[in-house]
Amino acid sequence: MITLGENRYGKSRVRLVRVTRGLERHDLREWTVEILLQGDFESCFKDGDNSKILATDTMKNTVYSLARKTGAGCMEEFAKELIDFILRRNPQVSNAEVAISENAWDHVVTGGKPHPTTFVKSSEERQTTKITRGQQDKFSIVSGLENLIIMKTADSGFEGYIQDSLTTLPPTADRLFGTALRANWNYAAEGDFDKLRVNIREILLAVFAGHASKSVQHTLYAMGEAVLESVPQLSEIELTMPNIHCLLVDLSRFGQDNPNEIFVPTDEPHGYIEARIRRQG
Amino acid sequence: MITLGENRYGKSRVRLVRVTRGLERHDLREWTVEILLQGDFESCFKDGDNSKILATDTMKNTVYSLARKTGAGCMEEFAKELIDFILRRNPQVSNAEVAISENAWDHVVTGGKPHPTTFVKSSEERQTTKITRGQQDKFSIVSGLENLIIMKTADSGFEGYIQDSLTTLPPTADRLFGTALRANWNYAAEGDFDKLRVNIREILLAVFAGHASKSVQHTLYAMGEAVLESVPQLSEIELTMPNIHCLLVDLSRFGQDNPNEIFVPTDEPHGYIEARIRRQG
Amino acid sequence: MITLGENRYGKSRVRLVRVTRGLERHDLREWTVEILLQGDFESCFKDGDNSKILATDTMKNTVYSLARKTGAGCMEEFAKELIDFILRRNPQVSNAEVAISENAWDHVVTGGKPHPTTFVKSSEERQTTKITRGQQDKFSIVSGLENLIIMKTADSGFEGYIQDSLTTLPPTADRLFGTALRANWNYAAEGDFDKLRVNIREILLAVFAGHASKSVQHTLYAMGEAVLESVPQLSEIELTMPNIHCLLVDLSRFGQDNPNEIFVPTDEPHGYIEARIRRQG
Amino acid sequence: MITLGENRYGKSRVRLVRVTRGLERHDLREWTVEILLQGDFESCFKDGDNSKILATDTMKNTVYSLARKTGAGCMEEFAKELIDFILRRNPQVSNAEVAISENAWDHVVTGGKPHPTTFVKSSEERQTTKITRGQQDKFSIVSGLENLIIMKTADSGFEGYIQDSLTTLPPTADRLFGTALRANWNYAAEGDFDKLRVNIREILLAVFAGHASKSVQHTLYAMGEAVLESVPQLSEIELTMPNIHCLLVDLSRFGQDNPNEIFVPTDEPHGYIEARIRRQG
Repeated sequence: MITLGENRYGKSRVRLVRVTRGLERHDLREWTVEILLQGDFESCFKDGDNSKILATDTMKNTVYSLARKTGAGCMEEFAKELIDFILRRNPQVSNAEVAISENAWDHVVTGGKPHPTTFVKSSEERQTTKITRGQQDKFSIVSGLENLIIMKTADSGFEGYIQDSLTTLPPTADRLFGTALRANWNYAAEGDFDKLRVNIREILLAVFAGHASKSVQHTLYAMGEAVLESVPQLSEIELTMPNIHCLLVDLSRFGQDNPNEIFVPTDEPHGYIEARIRRQG
Repeated sequence: MITLGENRYGKSRVRLVRVTRGLERHDLREWTVEILLQGDFESCFKDGDNSKILATDTMKNTVYSLARKTGAGCMEEFAKELIDFILRRNPQVSNAEVAISENAWDHVVTGGKPHPTTFVKSSEERQTTKITRGQQDKFSIVSGLENLIIMKTADSGFEGYIQDSLTTLPPTADRLFGTALRANWNYAAEGDFDKLRVNIREILLAVFAGHASKSVQHTLYAMGEAVLESVPQLSEIELTMPNIHCLLVDLSRFGQDNPNEIFVPTDEPHGYIEARIRRQG
Repeated sequence: MITLGENRYGKSRVRLVRVTRGLERHDLREWTVEILLQGDFESCFKDGDNSKILATDTMKNTVYSLARKTGAGCMEEFAKELIDFILRRNPQVSNAEVAISENAWDHVVTGGKPHPTTFVKSSEERQTTKITRGQQDKFSIVSGLENLIIMKTADSGFEGYIQDSLTTLPPTADRLFGTALRANWNYAAEGDFDKLRVNIREILLAVFAGHASKSVQHTLYAMGEAVLESVPQLSEIELTMPNIHCLLVDLSRFGQDNPNEIFVPTDEPHGYIEARIRRQG
Repeated sequence: MITLGENRYGKSRVRLVRVTRGLERHDLREWTVEILLQGDFESCFKDGDNSKILATDTMKNTVYSLARKTGAGCMEEFAKELIDFILRRNPQVSNAEVAISENAWDHVVTGGKPHPTTFVKSSEERQTTKITRGQQDKFSIVSGLENLIIMKTADSGFEGYIQDSLTTLPPTADRLFGTALRANWNYAAEGDFDKLRVNIREILLAVFAGHASKSVQHTLYAMGEAVLESVPQLSEIELTMPNIHCLLVDLSRFGQDNPNEIFVPTDEPHGYIEARIRRQG
């Protein structure tokens, strides 16, 4: 017999710019929202009965309508409101997930100070959150960041790995170590999400910068461990660190040395390392 | 106490072009390979001990070396060889996963027939496989395709869904239905993977084309059901069908009608529907 | 004194899907349109006087309104209508340019024949046209194609080039030759644009396939020359052929040969060759 | 008769990371270089004679070799050295163009101060230069920036434009004005390129922020004019300002107002405005 297994549906890439107009200055936030629902939708799949279907277009409208009304200051609070709103009005939905991604806009600095109503998109780093809740459950909150592109030019080596018949990589005590960091941390207890986010990001950067790295894995673990040690609200953190390779150019063919100065950055292939680090017991 | 949880590492985007030079014609295949390993790597994370680490650069070399030796005709067979090779030489690895994605190149047709040594990249559709095995286990084989962009201009409606205070989408008995299909099917038994792939793809397209669609969900289920009914080797299929919306342009503002002829295609926001359909009992 | 020099403005990426509903089958075309205007706009730049400005939003509306009315069967005819319409209604515009890019959708083949109302996006190749006209002038028509990705696995070498102290590339009589072809041809006389387009594309592919290539330049010239020789309506053709490099993998490190079978395709860096070929006298 | 017209060839996307290792801190620069040559290459196109061809692979090697030797501190000086080097060694080249694009990396700030050997990729803005020279000529130097994404939430309106039968855009005295600025300025006299670049960028941002904008054109001209007034080394500046539209969401359908707070950002279609502003007489 053939049956319907896990399934979900919703709306992706609902984009929103929200301007908060203070007397002295404006604030600008740009979010991309995704809503995904699970529930009692078998008759839709099997019989084409849409009577329990909340149109994904309506989900989009809900984002904009709620954005106008909300008092939520951060992504996490807005996502929770959105989930509550949808679950309350849609008993056929058993579980709702809202993911939000934020692109940072900073006030432009002109004449040495931030201009109150003009903004510059500061980087391609994105702040993220993904929150889920079942009808009778508590929120499960995972926040994070992605595409934080960082590079160490000192204190990084890679030696002592397996040498087999297919190994050609030379060991090195001094290499460039670059990555596009993605981090996701699970909240065991709620808190001031924006303040915690700033704190976690600072720890990740400080450990990455200060660590005497023997491998990507070695530094990744140190970063995750430091975050969990400092932030009691977290139960777990997952770090994904693709290796952005910078290959030392062989200039000896031209009678030149290359004392770790001239590199070719390459996008592919790239190493890929990911791990979860968690608090136990 | 803080501990290391799930972790894996490997090499992504190892790209390979393989030319098979027959007397009468050449064949050209372009693959992108990813290898991900799990195993006994805690000392690397915690102590910077790389003695159990197979360098990701060595994994890359392994792909090329094996590609020269292999007799494998399809992605699935090559992935299995690669996994066997790595597991045999690396007892510290408990589980290896290999994912391969293929871009199609067709022989160019000139003068009405295929040219033997000239190729054209035919589409952005990719054929995929993801195979995993633990040291003592059997292979788990999931094959699929992605980015198969298809559109129905007839036999598609969306009506009878929930009307609430935030609903503005008008019901319609005749809309465009476009998607970038991703499919992943699980093999319960092995077979001629290339022949099965062609068969599955044909069924997916035929049902999409012929179905009287009442929703994306409705058609998705019919597609998956038909595949499982026809291909006994499969235990399960997952279909992901983001909705590529084409919005009817309101021309009444200019005194014109628009009998379902002029549409604006939009990339965002987009509906997102995914479901697994499986054989049971 | 500071003055306004060349300037133009308009609307980019106006996307349009047009369904033609025949009794037996539908046709589907997807176009992306750009309109750029030049004219007497100095007071807008210098004084903020918008009285001569046709809003770019109105240009977008014009595309959709005209698409409903037009009898134009091909991009070139539609672009000409659009230019005529804008120039007639806007005497302050001295020159209008319309560029259209088309993504191909083919009828899906099911059960061995094309399905009348279901389509598949066939490739990332785009058909293009760029047409301009001043108020009192004739049309200047340049049509073309872009992103036609092709590869030769035989009849291509690169030898006899300059050997200097920085040369490390080994000469070869047998290499892969891949490119993402862009072509733009200028019409000296009008004709059946769709039929000419098919003809030109076939000649480009046939010469690429059949040529005994000594360099990208060598083949590029042969392709352009053949087109001009066969299509008297053209005055000139420009071909751009970035080199998609496939590097032979050195397997000798592993005790293996590599008789031109295993290659690494790379996106960067890449060679870039472009030239115009024209009819003279 | 069919002849070869304008043509050029070279290497694109030669990527380079250069680490300068000071005692107290490192510097990191990431450049992407393109070299394009014109010259006496007709025999290559027509006869497959490569004897005058500098291989594009050799151009790539030249970039890395010169990067090791150079004392050049900025992109412009390095591009000039590269051109001189190539023209001197290749008399068959009549004209060489070098374009460089720089991605900014900043020192990571940890514990309130910049870390000496750790970097973060700060934004997707790129600093650019394009320099050309013929064998007997002076350098022509155009520098610029691209993808500087900026937004004004006050002091921007768009009113008084043409109202015709296809106009539906409502005039507004208060809209969001966003763009991804590209600027290219021509040097009439050389100077400290890095210092001039910083100065020009500051002027562009300050005028954008402070201007009472009546249209994109209006602000674009004010920005260009201010740069030319302050920087006597420049003869001309070209500004390209695609309009990143943020559409006010109509919440009245849900009984809500929207006092310029909730917007949908859209990537397509988008307005496109470009103009050159120059010093005359």
